[in-house]
Order: sequence, then C-alpha cells, then structure tokens
Amino acid sequence: MKLFFFFLVTAALQAQENKVQFVKPIIGTEKMGHTFPGATVPFGAVQLSPDTDTIPFLSGGKYNKEVYKYCAGYKYEDKTIVGFSHTHFSGTGHSDLGDFLIMPTQGALQLQPGVASNPKKGFRSAFSHENEQVEAGYYKVKLDDEVITAELTASTRVGMHQYTFENAGESHIILDLMAGIYNYDDKNVWTYARVINDTLITGFRQTNGWARTRTVYFALSFSKPFKSYGQKNYEEKQAYTGFWRKFDQTKNFPEIAGKKIRMYFDFDVLANEKIKLKMALSSVSQQNALENMQAEIAHWDFEKVKQQAQDQWNLELQKIAIEANEATKINFYTAMYHAFISPTVYNDVNLDYKGLDQNTHKATGFTNYSTFSIWDTYRALHPFFNLMQPKRNNDMMKSMMAHYEQSALKMLPIWSHYSNDNWCMSGYHSVSLLADAIAKEVYTGDIEAALAACVATATHRDYEGIGFYMDKGFIPAEKSGISVSNTLEYAYDDWCIAQIAKKANKMDIYDTFMKRSEHWKNNLNPKTGFMQPKLANGNFTTNFDTQATHGQGFIEGNSWNYSFFVPHNPSELKAKMGGNKAFISRLDQLFSMELPDAFFADTEDITREGIIGGYVHGNEPAHHVAYLYNWTSAPWKTQYQVRNILKKQYQPTSDGLGGNDDCGQMSAWYLFSSLGFYPVSPGDTTYAIGSPAITSATLFLENGKVFKIETHNQSEQNVYVKKVELNGKPLSKLFLDHKDIVSGGTLTFYMQSQQEK
Amino acid sequence: MKLFFFFLVTAALQAQENKVQFVKPIIGTEKMGHTFPGATVPFGAVQLSPDTDTIPFLSGGKYNKEVYKYCAGYKYEDKTIVGFSHTHFSGTGHSDLGDFLIMPTQGALQLQPGVASNPKKGFRSAFSHENEQVEAGYYKVKLDDEVITAELTASTRVGMHQYTFENAGESHIILDLMAGIYNYDDKNVWTYARVINDTLITGFRQTNGWARTRTVYFALSFSKPFKSYGQKNYEEKQAYTGFWRKFDQTKNFPEIAGKKIRMYFDFDVLANEKIKLKMALSSVSQQNALENMQAEIAHWDFEKVKQQAQDQWNLELQKIAIEANEATKINFYTAMYHAFISPTVYNDVNLDYKGLDQNTHKATGFTNYSTFSIWDTYRALHPFFNLMQPKRNNDMMKSMMAHYEQSALKMLPIWSHYSNDNWCMSGYHSVSLLADAIAKEVYTGDIEAALAACVATATHRDYEGIGFYMDKGFIPAEKSGISVSNTLEYAYDDWCIAQIAKKANKMDIYDTFMKRSEHWKNNLNPKTGFMQPKLANGNFTTNFDTQATHGQGFIEGNSWNYSFFVPHNPSELKAKMGGNKAFISRLDQLFSMELPDAFFADTEDITREGIIGGYVHGNEPAHHVAYLYNWTSAPWKTQYQVRNILKKQYQPTSDGLGGNDDCGQMSAWYLFSSLGFYPVSPGDTTYAIGSPAITSATLFLENGKVFKIETHNQSEQNVYVKKVELNGKPLSKLFLDHKDIVSGGTLTFYMQSQQEK
Repeated sequence: MKLFFFFLVTAALQAQENKVQFVKPIIGTEKMGHTFPGATVPFGAVQLSPDTDTIPFLSGGKYNKEVYKYCAGYKYEDKTIVGFSHTHFSGTGHSDLGDFLIMPTQGALQLQPGVASNPKKGFRSAFSHENEQVEAGYYKVKLDDEVITAELTASTRVGMHQYTFENAGESHIILDLMAGIYNYDDKNVWTYARVINDTLITGFRQTNGWARTRTVYFALSFSKPFKSYGQKNYEEKQAYTGFWRKFDQTKNFPEIAGKKIRMYFDFDVLANEKIKLKMALSSVSQQNALENMQAEIAHWDFEKVKQQAQDQWNLELQKIAIEANEATKINFYTAMYHAFISPTVYNDVNLDYKGLDQNTHKATGFTNYSTFSIWDTYRALHPFFNLMQPKRNNDMMKSMMAHYEQSALKMLPIWSHYSNDNWCMSGYHSVSLLADAIAKEVYTGDIEAALAACVATATHRDYEGIGFYMDKGFIPAEKSGISVSNTLEYAYDDWCIAQIAKKANKMDIYDTFMKRSEHWKNNLNPKTGFMQPKLANGNFTTNFDTQATHGQGFIEGNSWNYSFFVPHNPSELKAKMGGNKAFISRLDQLFSMELPDAFFADTEDITREGIIGGYVHGNEPAHHVAYLYNWTSAPWKTQYQVRNILKKQYQPTSDGLGGNDDCGQMSAWYLFSSLGFYPVSPGDTTYAIGSPAITSATLFLENGKVFKIETHNQSEQNVYVKKVELNGKPLSKLFLDHKDIVSGGTLTFYMQSQQEK
Repeated sequence: MKLFFFFLVTAALQAQENKVQFVKPIIGTEKMGHTFPGATVPFGAVQLSPDTDTIPFLSGGKYNKEVYKYCAGYKYEDKTIVGFSHTHFSGTGHSDLGDFLIMPTQGALQLQPGVASNPKKGFRSAFSHENEQVEAGYYKVKLDDEVITAELTASTRVGMHQYTFENAGESHIILDLMAGIYNYDDKNVWTYARVINDTLITGFRQTNGWARTRTVYFALSFSKPFKSYGQKNYEEKQAYTGFWRKFDQTKNFPEIAGKKIRMYFDFDVLANEKIKLKMALSSVSQQNALENMQAEIAHWDFEKVKQQAQDQWNLELQKIAIEANEATKINFYTAMYHAFISPTVYNDVNLDYKGLDQNTHKATGFTNYSTFSIWDTYRALHPFFNLMQPKRNNDMMKSMMAHYEQSALKMLPIWSHYSNDNWCMSGYHSVSLLADAIAKEVYTGDIEAALAACVATATHRDYEGIGFYMDKGFIPAEKSGISVSNTLEYAYDDWCIAQIAKKANKMDIYDTFMKRSEHWKNNLNPKTGFMQPKLANGNFTTNFDTQATHGQGFIEGNSWNYSFFVPHNPSELKAKMGGNKAFISRLDQLFSMELPDAFFADTEDITREGIIGGYVHGNEPAHHVAYLYNWTSAPWKTQYQVRNILKKQYQPTSDGLGGNDDCGQMSAWYLFSSLGFYPVSPGDTTYAIGSPAITSATLFLENGKVFKIETHNQSEQNVYVKKVELNGKPLSKLFLDHKDIVSGGTLTFYMQSQQEK
C-alpha cells in the first residue's frame, strides 16, 4: 500500500518541476505575519520550529504586549534562538503550544531559572540569517555561540532533529518541559517523563491556557546513547514531594514529575559528530506516541525523512502549475505552503485521538483534524480546500461534526485546537464551512445531522448574545462590546444554515434562517449608511466613531470595514446604502481615506503596512470587500484593487505579509485572487471574477479533471479584464460557478491596461 | 457465569450462619485505629465512607498534626459530617484519597470558601452515633441539621448513595471536586467534569500528593433528573480563563474545569423522597468509569446492591467458622473484615488499568491490585492471604510483578497505590511477599522472573543506603536516620530472596543473599546486646538511647523493639544476645518495663493504649516478638503474652484498636494469634504455636480441604498450652507447617491455667 503510494508520488514528481524550490517559509516571519520557519509536512501534527524567545506574561499573570509578537515562537528580528519546539500555530494572533523545547549546548551546563531573563550559554545562542536554510519540510541553522549546526525535518507525527557538533567535547541536549509559547506561571498543570533506557524517554505535558484542558504525550529517541542525564525543578514553592526525597532526583533518575522541569542529557562528542533525535507526539498516550514514531520514522536516515517531507510538499504544490515571474511563483507556492499547514492532523497512526470530551475516540473512516481558526479560514481557506483539497476538507467537516457530538454544550467548533474550544472571535462560522462543503458536494456525511448541529449552535441563547439576536434581531450595545460584528456575522452564518436546510429540504428551517439572515439590516443606520451599534431601546448609540476598532460594537475591524459585511447579499446592501453610485463612492472612500496616527496607537494587530486607505487587509472582515465592485457598474475597480492588494500586501520577503497569516486565510486570499476569482460568500457556489496575477495556471483536481486559467496580455500594468472566456465562450457576467471549474476546462482572461467601461 | 456464581453463593450462605452480623466496622474509628466506617465490598476499588473533616495543611503547605488524625476521613469523636467520599485507606498513618465528596443539603445554598473554617449548613451537618448504622457493605446516618438520612453501599467499582429527605422543599446535592483527605493548596492538579444530561456527569480529579501523579476518573448518575445545577470555583488566583468568560459558567454550564471547584445539583423533593446516586470510578478514563457502572449496577435497587455487598462479605467471612463468645466473634469477624479491605482491586471491568508508567495496561489473566502497604502487611496479612485467599494473593503477586515491569527504576513496590509508589517506610518487603507466596506454592508466575525482580530491587544502590549496606554490611549512622531499621529489614528481606533463589536453583544468588542476611549482626553491639547505630568508621554511636524512636537509627520502633528483629534466625539472635536465659530475660524486660511520659511526648502514632511494657503493638516491628519465647525454654510466655495482647489491644468498640490497623496487618495478627499460630518469618512455611483464643475454628480452604482447630478446656484463664495434637498425634515442637494446614486435618489444643514447664 505504502510502496504503491510512493511509486505514484515518484511518477508524479518526475513529470513536473520541483515546486519546493519556490517555497520560502521565511516569508511572514518578520513583523506581522506570525508564520514560523520550521519543518512540517502538509497538515502535519508536528510543526518543529526554532523559537527565538518564549516571553512570559508579567508577574501576576498580567498580559505582556510583547507576548503577541511571539505567537509563532520565532521573530525574524531576534538575534538569538532559545531552542526548537514541536508545536506551533501558523499566523495566529493568539497562541499556545511550543511543546518540548530542545536545545543543544556544549561545555559545563548551568541551569539557571528563567529563559528570557538569563541569556546564558545553553539557553540561547546567537544565530544569523545568513546561516539559516529555510525550506518546506526542512530547517537548518548554525548556533553561533555553540558552534552547533541544527537541522530539523518532520513526518506527520514525528519531528526529527540533527545536531552537528563542530567541536569535540562535553555536550548536552536540553529537553525543556516547562517552556511554552504564551507562557506564564501555572500554565503547566503537570509534566511527567520517564527514561526508559539510554536512548528513549516518554512522558507528557499538560497545560491550562488557550486550550483549557490539554495534554500532549511524547516519545523522544536519541540516535546515540546518552552517558548520563539529569533534571532541574524550577518550582519555587515545591509541590509535595513526600518520600521521593529518598532519591537524588537531580541526576540519572528515571521517573520525573512536576510543573517546572528541565531535563538534560549528556554526551561526549567527537568533532563534527552528529546526534539525531526523533520526537513523536500523541494526544492520547505515551504508547501511541511511541507507536507513531515506529510507524513513521523507524530509522535514523535524516536525509530520507527530509526527502519524504519535501516529496509530500511537492505532491501538494504540484496540484497547481503556474506560469509567472519568479517573485510571483515564490509568493504563490509559499502561499500554498502556508495554506496547507493547518488544520493539523489530530489522530494517531492507530486512529486514536482525544476528543473534546477528553475521551479517547477512533477516527474511523476519516482523518481527524484540529486547529480550526474558523473565523479566519471560512472566508477563503476552506473554499480553497473545497477546490484543491476536497478529500481533506470532507474529513475536516467530519472532524467538526465529531467535535459537535463530543460537545456537552452541543456546539460546533468556534476556534478549536487540541481537544478544546478556545472560543476565540465572533460568529459560528463552522456553519459556513459545512454549507460550502455541502453546496460544492464535497461533504459526504449526513446533511440532516449537519443541519441539526448548525441549528443547535445557532440557537445557543447564552452564547455571545445569540438570545438577544434571536429575540430582537440585533444585540443591544449595552450587552456586548462587539454587538454589530456578531449580528452581521450571525446573519451571514444564518444564510449558510438556510442553504443547508434547502439542500435537506427542511423548508421551515430554511424560512427561519433566511429571515434571520436579514438581521444585518437592523444595525444599518439608514441616515449614515453605516453599520452602527444599537441600544436595547432600538436607538443607535450616540458618540459613534466609524473608525473605532475596540469596544464600539466591532472586533478586528471598524464600521468602515464591517459596514460592507453582507457577503450573502451585496445587492441589497448596495440598495440600502443608497444604490450603485453611493455604494461605489463608499467603497472608493474606504480604499482611499487617510487614517490618523491615533488609529494605530492602541491596536496590536493593525499596522500601516496592513492598510490600504482605511481597508484593513491584515484583518479578515473586509477580505471580500474589494470584490464588491463586481455588484456595481465599476467591476474594473475590483480588478484594480485586487491587484493593488496582491502587490502591496504580499512580498517574497521575511516581512512580506501585511498581517497575521491566520492559519492560511491570508494565503488563501492570495491564491484565489492571483488565479483571478474569489468566493465572496462561501456557501454559495459562485466566485466573483477579479484579475489574475499569473500568466497561466493549471489546476489538477482530485476528481482527475484539469482546469486551466490562461491569460492574454497579462502584466503588472495590464490589470484590467477586457473579456473572459470559459471554454472559448465569453462569460456574460464577471462570475464563475464552482461546477464550471470542477468539470474541467479553460478560463481565458484577456487583459488590458485601461479599465473596461 | 454470573448467575452460576450467585447460585453457589446462595447455596453456601444457606448452609452457614450470617457472619456479617458480627462485623462492626465502627471498631477502630476512634483514637488510633484509623479505620473508616463506610461501605465497601471485599477488596473493593470504591470505599465509600463519611468524612467528618478534611483538615488542610497549615498555610505554606506546613504539616498540621491534626491531619494525622484524619487518615481515614472519619473520626468517631467528631460531631459533624462534611460529606461522603469514595476512596479511603483503612488504618494508615499517612493518607491521600477522599475523592469526590458528596453532601446533600436543603434550603438556600451558600457556597462559602473553605470547609473546615466555615461550619455552615450545606457543608457539614451534626450527627449522632445513635442514628448511625454501620455494617459490612452498608452505612446509614441521619444528618441532623439537614434532616436527611444518608445510606451508602457499594459494588467493587461503584458507590451507591441513597438520601431520604424528611422534609419537602428545595434540595441540593453537592459534588465537591476539591475536597480530599490530606488536603492542601496545590493538591488538586486539575479537575474536569462534563454534564452529559440531567442525570449523568463524568470527569476526573488529578492530584499530586502521596501519589505523585494520580488521576481518578468518575461517572456519576442520579436516580432523578436535577432541575438545575451550578458550580463555584474557589481559586483565589484564577487560572487563565481566556474566552471561556463569554459564558456564565456558574449556572447550568456543562463543561467544567479548574483546580478548586464545587458543583451542586438542585432538586425539588417531596417529604420522604429518596434520591439515589451511583458513582463509578476508573483509573483509566471516563468511558471506563461509565462502563464499570453499567456492568456492576445497571439498576436503581439500593437494597439489592446492599444485599449483594453483604452476600460477598458473608462468602469471604464464612471461610472461617469459629466457636467463641460474642465479643470474640465480633473481634474476629471484624478483624477478618478489616483484613479483606486492601489491597484494592485496581482494574476496570474491561481489564484496563493505569500502570506505574502512567500507561494503560490490560490485566490479562489476573486481577490487578493496588494499595500495598507492604512494610506493614508482609508480616501477617499476606501470609494470612496465602492461607485463606491464595487466589487473590497470587494475583497480588502478579500485580507487584507488573508494577516492577512498569517501573523505570526497576524496583518492586515499597508502598504503592493508584499507579504510584509513595516510597513510605523501610525495607523492600515485596521480596518477603513473593518468597512467602512461592514457599507456600501460591504463586503461579515465573519464579526466575520474580527472583530477578527481587535482586534488582535489593541492589538499587541509590535507594535508602542499599549501596552502603552492600559494601559495608551496615548503613553508617551519618548517612541515615534509620540506619539500623534498614539494615535489619534488608537482612531479613535478603534471607527471603535467598529462599526464592534456592527454589529457582540459583545457588550463587542464594549464597550472596544468605551472606547478606547475616548483616543484622553488624548492628548488634555485643557489649549491650542491643541493636545500635554504627558510624562509618565501624564504631557504635555514643549517647545512644535504647528507647528513642526518632532519628536514632530506627523508624516506628526503638532499639528495645528492633533488637529482636531477626525473624529469619531467632536462634542465632538468642545466642548473640547471651543465650537462652539472657534472651528470656530481655524479652521479659520488654514486656514489663515502664516507660516515662516523655516517651510519648513526640510521637503521633504511639499512645499508652498501644503499649505493653515497652512492647509497642501499635507499630509493626515487634509483631513477631511475643512468639520468640518459642525459641527458648519458656514458650508458655509466648502463650501468656499473645493472649495478653489479644485481650488488651483488641476490643469490640470504636476505640478498640490500640494502633493503626495498617491496611489489615493489625487485624491479621489478631486472626492468626486467636487461631493459635503465627508466621514469625514469612518466606518460611513454619508457624509458631501460640495460644488460641477461640473455642474452635473451621477453615474452609480454597483447595477444598478443611482444617479444624479444636480446643479443650480453653478459657480466658486457661491460656497455657498443655499439649497440641495434629490429626490426633502430639506435636513434638510448638511449630506447625503450612503443608499441615493446607492438607486438611485437625489441630487440637489442650489448655490449662498454669504454664507447662
């Protein structure tokens, strides 16, 4: 079975160019991107990457603004590396994870408390980007202070390290059980490790945090037996130790438990000797972690693992072959790489996984996924999956349904990772994911069951104002700081539920939710044409600021951006905002306004780089807005703005992302937009035509069909669409249907340097 | 299978008198016994009992002397009950457990922080012993403040509660996830619960403490749906709560997690309405807990569960039928009851259990047991099991071997419970258990593997001075406060290992350990005839106090008691102590000396009640000493002292035990001694004859044989043995072999009022 699979891989690879060469995982690691540069396979459970710091909260658990910068563990701007940990989010604005930090070091070992405040040898090493090699599935860096070269690669559930010690001598590998991203006192609930023999350790780390009740089990194997080992417990107030004090637990003691422990393993190395490590993870048990290791990497051939990781990437990336200039190819394949990092595989090779109910379940008949940043990714990432990864997206839908079934609250995931929901952001956009997968005939599960899950989630009266929303049609501003965002997003989500109901032929539910989907009208002030917070008495609030992003009814956006948030009905929004001309003018104003410095003073996730006029591409609520000109008499403005955003917000550089990549949503926007179309309203099968940024593209679909996108006269100047043909016939409207693509065929863009009027 | 089993039970029960009537679990609940009065089946995993207080440590985790008194959760002297929890140790001097405290209450609920300091309604209720009914497998009490009658019973893995509310009205049942025995800040590592529906809750409690890494999973079912529920989190410094703050988690919120949580469930009850609860436990998972519940108690018939529990007790107790006066019958069957409480069953109905390695294992081919208080129980309890519970004891040996195989340290258990070793007390007496089970042909496992485990444990140089002991033949007093206890106990244990080696025909190991078994001689000061601590330079310490019990080389004993600790070679000890006359005189002195008050000032586990002269029956190291006269010319003094101890140390009253029952060791001493013989040196098949305190006894052995003990002229005055016949033939020596018993037959004692000289 496996042999056959690899034969297919090899055959496919020979037929196409190597796409991995265009992937630059360093993109987005500086400033706002919050991506990580380390090694992962597509959708890998292990994402092994260097951390340049693990900033703790301030004393007393107070939030430290610096923490935000380290969501991915790695900041390009930093000069030192503290180690290599095995779990990372890609592009988030909140975080967790960073499990099992490994750091090699040479010379006498000094285990001082606290990482950040003690930049000592052994805890961090200087490095330079010149000595970094950052590829899909492979990361290499020279640790200058240590004169050790670190290399990382991974399989789905196993991270592999290779450390080359330039100098002979006393060497150590530190396994830090207390380190973590978004770290603070009491984040570690418990850690446990057992040294089984001189090359194998298993254990677990249990944390409280963004994931409230989370345990990661590990199995760690060394290529060379360590000669001794030890631990230091940094707990100031020691937990009850009882008669364990009979032992000297600091040295060569194999049963380790506590909350703040660093372990180290001692080696004598020759000059240029390599020590390799394999770290396998599981959500279920130490045994499963070990089984994952044995199943995925039974050997010590680092190059082979790296090759397999890159082969896997090639296989995914070759699903789209593009012609474009080098910079665009880098942007495109790196975007594809970032789009295929999460959701992450979340079951063991034996199919076990820990469910939301903290019970062990079997992922029978599907691969279970975790890391659902749904508020971000419903917009373009999952629609992109429905196009290019339908099998995986179907499994992701089944994972969400399993989550629902395991939920005592009976809710679909909001933002879920590692057997937990962290309840981040607004809306209940799982319903959009399901609606899109159902509309595009990707979901093979029971549609009625999906509908029931959506309805249960959307009628959870105690959650985020849903009760008010159901009763009044809006959420009173007194009751919520994000009343408008919620109402708008619920209205769109309800339209999605209605689409599912229609498929299921449940017309009473369809009617109910179509009615709810109009609730956006309740926050639209007809006098101003802006979405505005409304008081319980039905009056709009006074002293309303259209630019305010915090607490005035909105989240990750202001009224300027959110007022366009009716993705399921732009035509009626246009009408309510005063018709074609007024709507165009309002859109123009958004893209051209000038924001005062004060606007940026109090935001951690918006910078001038992420802004075009008042359009905030770095946050998601406006991601569809550039395409709204398609509903007006000026679709050429969509073409202009899309190309403008592609150009300004995506650069093939470490600081090339204007905002958090948000688990691939920013990248998915790039992918759709550069191909020339975008899903404005997931749940609908229609794409709005924009302006392709590639010369040509060939989509190799999972159903065996091929869809080609060809352009004539496309260039950086020729961003305007003169004509579009589908299979040689001109499109009458600037819209495309999903079926048009998945049936296979050719879309031909004729481009020009002036707008088509 | 099950039906057949119960048919056999019923048949056996009809044939014999009800023994449960003689069991008074209240014995030992006052003062020093540390037994609990609640409900358990023989060797039950759930031991459901009232707690009268859960004393916390002093601030800063400092040990509070009051804590010691609450090892069993219940103190007969107390006037109030705080609730009913599901796990208890029986008779220990250290503790843990007390999981999932349940308390019913009526009226408006006030959840105040802290149990002990807030004696409010709802947290504790007055009760009186007049309103208590305490039976094997059944406990009943009236909560006076609440006017609620509480009844408890249990199956192996499920506790069942029945609360009768005298008055109609608003009622609540509190599930306290933070309460525990030996409680202190940070004892709870994490707790988790989910309300699955209005009658079912599952979850877990994870603690750090005597068991360092311990999790107990539960499933709790109510006979009547609650109308609402809630929780209070008592954590002063709240753990990171993130976006969970979106919910009002205090009321009707089904996903609960934190460190200090009390839940409550609301009911409206009619006058005299009963609400029943079933609480099932598992060491592995919530699912297993639920499966345990469904397998063991699928119904709501409280009386049936109670009847089955008492039937199980009868089945065990009827293995010995005695003729004796009422008080002796009560003492005897209560001792048998206490002897059959632990070790406790530690696998789920599906055979899963959590091993020492924190992995899930299957107990295939044996029942897995936990709660091994081995320093206590190797002396008489496990020898008693080899006689009356060989099948279970064989499984206990297999459980210890599994523990060894799961131990990263490669050690047999010292004092183990709940997938942990707590390392309490001295020696490595697992080897004695194995040696005794092997010598008596009870153990069916691999003898060579058992030997290897014993040798590995006995050569763990870093543990408790074993390295010194191996190198020097004694442990230098500078290196250990209990150097003499350790050396003496190791020497006996080594003799046990030698016996196993002999069975396995490993004569090199036999020789090595027989040599080690003589190390007791190194601490015997020939000048004083006392066991004394020795310095590394080979000199005995100066300023030595034969009565000191702390830090002067001994643990739970002083030199007076420990100097007799050579159970495997009393003859040579006698010789070294000056021969027959000197030895007798020294023994006489022990039993007749007068101790100053100062002796009791600093001990928590020795009181005047537990002492005869200087002989401390309340602690174990001297348990064999009364029988040592059998190795002298004055065996009648054994007969006198044994009867004296039986009379003075065991009373059929709440304060009837002179010392901690220590998981059944004190009771096992009673059982053997009142039957007329005692295993002075477990690992040897010989019993020393004492003086029977019963009129007659019939032992129904598992092999189908029957062994009868008959007496002539036995009375409280006639304690001296004139003659003993085995199957009608006089015994030439006052010793009996295990084979003599298990072959079946009759032992006849002819008693008299004067010693046989």
